[in-house]
Amino acid sequence: MQKNITSDVTVIGAGLTGLTAAFYLKKAGKSVTVVERSHRVGGVIRTFSHDGFTYEAGPNTGVLSSPELVQLFDDLGNSCALETANPNAKRRLIWKNGTWNALPSGLGSAIGTPLFSFGDKLRILGEPFRKPGNNPYETLDQLVLRRMGRSFLEYAIDPFISGIYAGDPSLLVPKFALPKLYNLEQNYGSFIRGAMKKGKEPKSALEKRATKDVFSVSGGLQSLVDALAAAIGSENIILNAENTQITPHEDRYQISATATNGDAICIESSKVVSTAGAYELPSLFPFLGADELAPITNLRYAKVAQVVAGFREWNGIPLNGFGGLIPSKERRKVLGILFPSSIFPNRAPEGGALLSIFAGGIKNEAVYNLSDEELKQVAMREISETLSTNSKPNMLEVFRYPHAIAQYERSSEERFAAIEKIETACPGLILAGSIRDGIGMADRVKQGVNIAKEIETSRL
Amino acid sequence: MQKNITSDVTVIGAGLTGLTAAFYLKKAGKSVTVVERSHRVGGVIRTFSHDGFTYEAGPNTGVLSSPELVQLFDDLGNSCALETANPNAKRRLIWKNGTWNALPSGLGSAIGTPLFSFGDKLRILGEPFRKPGNNPYETLDQLVLRRMGRSFLEYAIDPFISGIYAGDPSLLVPKFALPKLYNLEQNYGSFIRGAMKKGKEPKSALEKRATKDVFSVSGGLQSLVDALAAAIGSENIILNAENTQITPHEDRYQISATATNGDAICIESSKVVSTAGAYELPSLFPFLGADELAPITNLRYAKVAQVVAGFREWNGIPLNGFGGLIPSKERRKVLGILFPSSIFPNRAPEGGALLSIFAGGIKNEAVYNLSDEELKQVAMREISETLSTNSKPNMLEVFRYPHAIAQYERSSEERFAAIEKIETACPGLILAGSIRDGIGMADRVKQGVNIAKEIETSRL
Repeated sequence: MQKNITSDVTVIGAGLTGLTAAFYLKKAGKSVTVVERSHRVGGVIRTFSHDGFTYEAGPNTGVLSSPELVQLFDDLGNSCALETANPNAKRRLIWKNGTWNALPSGLGSAIGTPLFSFGDKLRILGEPFRKPGNNPYETLDQLVLRRMGRSFLEYAIDPFISGIYAGDPSLLVPKFALPKLYNLEQNYGSFIRGAMKKGKEPKSALEKRATKDVFSVSGGLQSLVDALAAAIGSENIILNAENTQITPHEDRYQISATATNGDAICIESSKVVSTAGAYELPSLFPFLGADELAPITNLRYAKVAQVVAGFREWNGIPLNGFGGLIPSKERRKVLGILFPSSIFPNRAPEGGALLSIFAGGIKNEAVYNLSDEELKQVAMREISETLSTNSKPNMLEVFRYPHAIAQYERSSEERFAAIEKIETACPGLILAGSIRDGIGMADRVKQGVNIAKEIETSRL
Repeated sequence: MQKNITSDVTVIGAGLTGLTAAFYLKKAGKSVTVVERSHRVGGVIRTFSHDGFTYEAGPNTGVLSSPELVQLFDDLGNSCALETANPNAKRRLIWKNGTWNALPSGLGSAIGTPLFSFGDKLRILGEPFRKPGNNPYETLDQLVLRRMGRSFLEYAIDPFISGIYAGDPSLLVPKFALPKLYNLEQNYGSFIRGAMKKGKEPKSALEKRATKDVFSVSGGLQSLVDALAAAIGSENIILNAENTQITPHEDRYQISATATNGDAICIESSKVVSTAGAYELPSLFPFLGADELAPITNLRYAKVAQVVAGFREWNGIPLNGFGGLIPSKERRKVLGILFPSSIFPNRAPEGGALLSIFAGGIKNEAVYNLSDEELKQVAMREISETLSTNSKPNMLEVFRYPHAIAQYERSSEERFAAIEKIETACPGLILAGSIRDGIGMADRVKQGVNIAKEIETSRL
């Protein structure tokens, strides 16, 4: 049996990017087919709910940092309820010398915090007056040492980068990995002066609503991708697609795949949007040469393991905040512990707690490679030692993502160039996903929106 | 006609202190009579509601800073709904060089703020290491210059003191006026080190709920005093009491007053709690000598005028925050502008705004003495120049309190001694109210609670 489909656009991958692009393309009147390898939509986003706990296997929170994301929630209407973090969750803890310290949130705590050295506190007063760097490939650690000082690198930037990238500041290049930060220095000469000037720039109504609040969705992030999938329509989403291959054919593309029952699927589209990971591109695009793809496929991903622990009754220290991050310098086994039940409602039974322990990442891949049992033991030891409880959790699960987070290192420039070269050579083909344009949920949605706009305004 | 009453305790004054004391005394089974000169309960607390605006004639907000206040809301139950400020109202604006600047709320803004000089930013890093003062009568300006620097005095402490005391930092003595701040230096050697250490001390469940959030009450602060009065019972509150006089008689006191209809009222009590202002004591207590009372009656009060402006549609700058304070150094006509409709719900119609402009105070009594028309003009000019609107307000009212806020100056020590001396000489007489123990609502409630406890545990 062969199933033949013709659609204006084929989207490879039913993660947040692919679903957002398909959602807006369909809204604009295009016919769309989404092809997904796994049995479900959502990609790394996946929520579980049972026994009073609601927990994420992938990302736990996003940041409401792009107007496109605000608009998406508006457009989804009642099918998906945005949840912003409890204001107390602005409190972020950093482990130092055997105890948690809150990141400074005011003048007094900025001066008094034991996280940073006295010399660096003095030094950072000069940040607004320090001249900007001129090496676009400078790594993050060098940038921070130059503008802020070693204690800020070790006790603010290093844990911050663990939390976002599970990455290594000596490999990430701010121009690619943190372009907003990089541009503050390049455009305003200083992070601090830039942030203050940017804060005063006029904003549109939608930009004002991009409050940078931490967000999730009522019922967990799965509800967001489910709402997108429902709006796209299950008839337009092919799950369990095996051996997907894209082949150019005259002025269009043929997308072939095999269904679980062995049936062949054949789609013809003039536009193909790939949101697949870099490592999937060679098998998806056999007509592209290994040399052409090499600058893309060499993209490094952080492997991240997440241990989720649920307690019906919490008797450790008060989980007052977003969670705690552990600087590499402290040489503990995990990257950090999130307190999802303190950030959002209904994540754990009343009086209980839900914790997410992250481990692995670029700097500590050995821990990722432990067995499930070993990982659970590591997580429970960290909980006991840093949150002062010896209670047994009522729920304990391990999730692993071998390609959790793309690392925007120096090689990014060549990757972006290779993507552009392929897109120019193959009209109608768009290579997207987290291989470019950022790794956060707000970035993914923004990219999906922009791809849909680009296709809408092009001639099909 | 003469009305004779016998009650365990007579409370003079139906402001927040008197009502709180009476509420807890009645709860403890004592018979209580509250004697009030005016036609209503609440003292300086008074809320008006009409045409979609709900506004305060007296204090607009309190700070949830004492466990006693938290307990009071618990004890009042459903009769009074605590409202804490919108989290965005943590943003406080200070006027400098023709524009509003937010008080720093994080590391970056603390470093970059134009409110403080570079030298003072450097200098304040040394605050934790500066030795504590040893002059208990040091005025606030001297303390701040010694520990923090002139720009902090002028652009943080001066407006902060306008907001709390409508006062003058060169007259207020921290030991009496800001005892928590004074004790930080005395007990921990530094404001910053003290604040951080205090933040880590273990707290009771009730103390934890004293979050220091800004609060009001659903429907305005009048609802709080109304709820207290309802619980005390109108049969126990005598309003419109004229010529009230207290006279010792054997082992008790006789309290005489005249009702509006000319009837004489005579109460006998073994305990009398005065919450009257210092200036009212000579006529209330004719048996106390002028010499005995002089250290109390010389208490200085700030005169404060409040202009309330209501706009059905607001087209000025976004009122994003608690309000703006104006340092004396900026030489404008008013002390500050509060944004009550940004702090609490239902203070103005949707899309509209309610503003409270404060003027007068110790440093600028001349403005207090303007006519109502002149005050309204001053207020509207300030709104137009600092909040960029030329709309006419739909509501504009002036309130004045000639004894708005007691000033805890150097004379406080003698005042406290005089109070103690009188209380020792006259068993059963308690002189309270804002002449001692602080001026904030949390202070007033705490004092009322403590007086009730003291009487409960004493032999009547």
